[in-house]
Amino acid sequence: MSSGSNLIGEGSLVLLFFDLRRQWLLRVESSREFHTHKGFIKLAELVGRPFGSEVRSSIGQSFWALKPTTHDLIMHSARRTQIMYPKDIGLIILKLALSSGCRVLEIGTGSGAMTVATATVIKPTGHVDTYEARNEFAEIAERNLRRASLTDYVTIHNADASAGIEGSDFDAAIIDVGDPWPVIPHVQQALAGGAAVVSFSPTVNQVEKTNEVFLHGGFVNVHTLECFIREIRADTGRTRPATFMVGHTGYMTFAQKVHSSTG
Amino acid sequence: MSSGSNLIGEGSLVLLFFDLRRQWLLRVESSREFHTHKGFIKLAELVGRPFGSEVRSSIGQSFWALKPTTHDLIMHSARRTQIMYPKDIGLIILKLALSSGCRVLEIGTGSGAMTVATATVIKPTGHVDTYEARNEFAEIAERNLRRASLTDYVTIHNADASAGIEGSDFDAAIIDVGDPWPVIPHVQQALAGGAAVVSFSPTVNQVEKTNEVFLHGGFVNVHTLECFIREIRADTGRTRPATFMVGHTGYMTFAQKVHSSTG
Amino acid sequence: MSSGSNLIGEGSLVLLFFDLRRQWLLRVESSREFHTHKGFIKLAELVGRPFGSEVRSSIGQSFWALKPTTHDLIMHSARRTQIMYPKDIGLIILKLALSSGCRVLEIGTGSGAMTVATATVIKPTGHVDTYEARNEFAEIAERNLRRASLTDYVTIHNADASAGIEGSDFDAAIIDVGDPWPVIPHVQQALAGGAAVVSFSPTVNQVEKTNEVFLHGGFVNVHTLECFIREIRADTGRTRPATFMVGHTGYMTFAQKVHSSTG
Amino acid sequence: MSSGSNLIGEGSLVLLFFDLRRQWLLRVESSREFHTHKGFIKLAELVGRPFGSEVRSSIGQSFWALKPTTHDLIMHSARRTQIMYPKDIGLIILKLALSSGCRVLEIGTGSGAMTVATATVIKPTGHVDTYEARNEFAEIAERNLRRASLTDYVTIHNADASAGIEGSDFDAAIIDVGDPWPVIPHVQQALAGGAAVVSFSPTVNQVEKTNEVFLHGGFVNVHTLECFIREIRADTGRTRPATFMVGHTGYMTFAQKVHSSTG
Repeated sequence: MSSGSNLIGEGSLVLLFFDLRRQWLLRVESSREFHTHKGFIKLAELVGRPFGSEVRSSIGQSFWALKPTTHDLIMHSARRTQIMYPKDIGLIILKLALSSGCRVLEIGTGSGAMTVATATVIKPTGHVDTYEARNEFAEIAERNLRRASLTDYVTIHNADASAGIEGSDFDAAIIDVGDPWPVIPHVQQALAGGAAVVSFSPTVNQVEKTNEVFLHGGFVNVHTLECFIREIRADTGRTRPATFMVGHTGYMTFAQKVHSSTG
Repeated sequence: MSSGSNLIGEGSLVLLFFDLRRQWLLRVESSREFHTHKGFIKLAELVGRPFGSEVRSSIGQSFWALKPTTHDLIMHSARRTQIMYPKDIGLIILKLALSSGCRVLEIGTGSGAMTVATATVIKPTGHVDTYEARNEFAEIAERNLRRASLTDYVTIHNADASAGIEGSDFDAAIIDVGDPWPVIPHVQQALAGGAAVVSFSPTVNQVEKTNEVFLHGGFVNVHTLECFIREIRADTGRTRPATFMVGHTGYMTFAQKVHSSTG
Repeated sequence: MSSGSNLIGEGSLVLLFFDLRRQWLLRVESSREFHTHKGFIKLAELVGRPFGSEVRSSIGQSFWALKPTTHDLIMHSARRTQIMYPKDIGLIILKLALSSGCRVLEIGTGSGAMTVATATVIKPTGHVDTYEARNEFAEIAERNLRRASLTDYVTIHNADASAGIEGSDFDAAIIDVGDPWPVIPHVQQALAGGAAVVSFSPTVNQVEKTNEVFLHGGFVNVHTLECFIREIRADTGRTRPATFMVGHTGYMTFAQKVHSSTG
Repeated sequence: MSSGSNLIGEGSLVLLFFDLRRQWLLRVESSREFHTHKGFIKLAELVGRPFGSEVRSSIGQSFWALKPTTHDLIMHSARRTQIMYPKDIGLIILKLALSSGCRVLEIGTGSGAMTVATATVIKPTGHVDTYEARNEFAEIAERNLRRASLTDYVTIHNADASAGIEGSDFDAAIIDVGDPWPVIPHVQQALAGGAAVVSFSPTVNQVEKTNEVFLHGGFVNVHTLECFIREIRADTGRTRPATFMVGHTGYMTFAQKVHSSTG
């Protein structure tokens, strides 16, 4: 997202912002009107104007056309599964050292939230190979990747990874399936030496078993984290945290591949 | 970090891993011995072997030569200030849509923890312009960037950003200074329309004032988050969270630049 | 609640339990039927049976007649205000050393959640003097106290405490009003030497100002805590924390009264 | 702790307060000097003065003689085990409806932290029967109870509760042992109908098994909570949470006894 592309064009993805609770991710099509509870907006009016522009609805209300962030792409993605949350994904990017040029293996595409974030960070010279056994999820993920213009950097394998993984020397691996254990030996084979892997699991039982399998399967530096996020409602003289928060999404178990003995 | 560079060479940066509490980030120099409480290691033995290799110390203990992750570069960096933590940095990467090619503005380099993470994600075609008024921090940050081989992607301005910022149309901005208010108008000018900014602050008073200044200074989508992380000690049959955790690093206030009225 | 009263009688308060999400606090009246989505229950059937008994509804579903706990009395109380939560109230009981015989001052009765808990712990020989300026809340609180059979241990003063407090040498004080500052000097006068006080506040601004007023108004040991609670869904092989949690109720600022100089 | 006893006497227990990080729980003996890094205090000077009095050390520093709270008794108790924390104990008091007159059963006295808090709340007409198999802990607990003047309200059984429990119709039960399963059937027998029980466990594996045993052993309303506490450092203009916090003590699993079928 270099500054060259800072004008909204036909087909641009835009975050239409009204307030903190009302915002929509949409694609600009000149022929289309976008209807809200605060009047409708002619999307043609956005074309040719810079991101960040204010636009008035049919009843004179102000909206803003913002540039969608990776966070927006994830939170506004089509989904049929529990997705991984930005709080978790962000930490994974750092712990797996994801950056442009990385070749990443993902097991369990789901709705593609993690895939979108990973492809954003490894493009344009890296690549993601992601495995999803269930047809309908592979399709949803592809739709989410297409919307984010990331399909060039991802190969979706509509296959069960426990039957085998193509390729080798991956720089990092992300596992997000209910029973990661049969697939871990394949992941170990497919990773480059010293490379990092994460397995994401909602239950402590999965965490326990995943730790064991990593520890006995050619990995070191095995450790598990959970991440919480809380919103602060800043309002001068009345600042306080939000009443409700997400208490749990899942646990992240990290590890790094090692080669067996030095001989 | 593509798979091409998977052999440890003279001058490679390595995470030498003994166990979860004992690991060191070091540069491989053939002439050097690395001394630990578990014997010493001749670093010459690592050269030419793949990352992930096991190496024995003088007393026969096993160590592993892992690839350092962005997380390791941050947590093992030289520092004289409170640094931003990976849990916060990861979320910022997603909320600011950082990716290869982005031009990023940073105010308050400090020890360079956020700079290292940002440069890792925007390289090789992006760039970070970071401002640090205090000489000694600019030097520490440069040393941390050099160690991570990221100096090509960063310009450290040893200057006070409230006196003015060079350049315009930045894709994102990160502010990490005690009093961000005088610098926010300059940041607003320097950002591309619709681009995202974060301001990191330890106190709720800073949060309150930052929210106000953003809201009245040409930004929308202003909101504040805090992030917690907890370690789970997985041990089959005895799994439990760690006894101690970090309870606070700082608050992150996010916003997006808008253009003044539609005319 | 000694074991002597372990039979359900006419007029007993009962927690009718179906499952973790469906339970009701009700008073047993023989003439009454209690209707649920799982059939109705003739309350006359409960009379003369021990607490803990199973009872079948008109369609044969099992319900249990449990003894209500202080927690249940609080969470099932009639309310028109945000109430203090058991997690906070429990800590206050320990930090204020509440026990049978204590004379407790409360400013801001609200719906009486804290009053019910306090009266439960200080009865039968202690007493609570609670101030509530707003008529409608004083009435709700009285209803909640009457239901819990605690009116003998509480005097509700339907008055503004900042106009003055009756009595002296209270063993502890609890403040739960939006602006505690005008009342703190009166509370200081009314407390016994060395006695503890808590002020409960939703915002950080209130916390800041309350700390200041305590520190400059004849108190030491001034400190502020917040308390979180998270539910764990234990289910063999699939144990995990609940997805949502309460992220904030309020902050508790504690202090202890001192006498001015030693002369 | 009614106001009658508000003068410090020979033998009084006092919290000697210097600042938030430096405070001591001690017994007043006229012949004794108490030495600190800020000079020494002649304890004789405290006798006959009210709680809350200021006292100067040999070098003129101010200290305050405060009334110890239940929280202080717990946190300053002699201990050889991990103790239960006030945050957990407070919630247990509400969830078990502890109040004056209750007859409480405790399995696993440990250092007596929970015993002290329970005895404080159930005195003077209630009683605690607590079981501790290990001699040395029974002794530490007794010392802690004696210091808090609570021995009259507690019987310490230096015995293994899984071999049997004396008495019946207890109003509540608290279990704090590593393997609570063999003792749960005895606790079920000993409780009054509908009465509440809690089992405190550090690991999720214990939680899982305890839930199962409760659910299949004559209990309903089985649920597990964990509680966190965070300190806020209020300092006008610079207010922020404390950097470190306790991330885990243990999980509390609650349940209520039911009678088997209605016949």
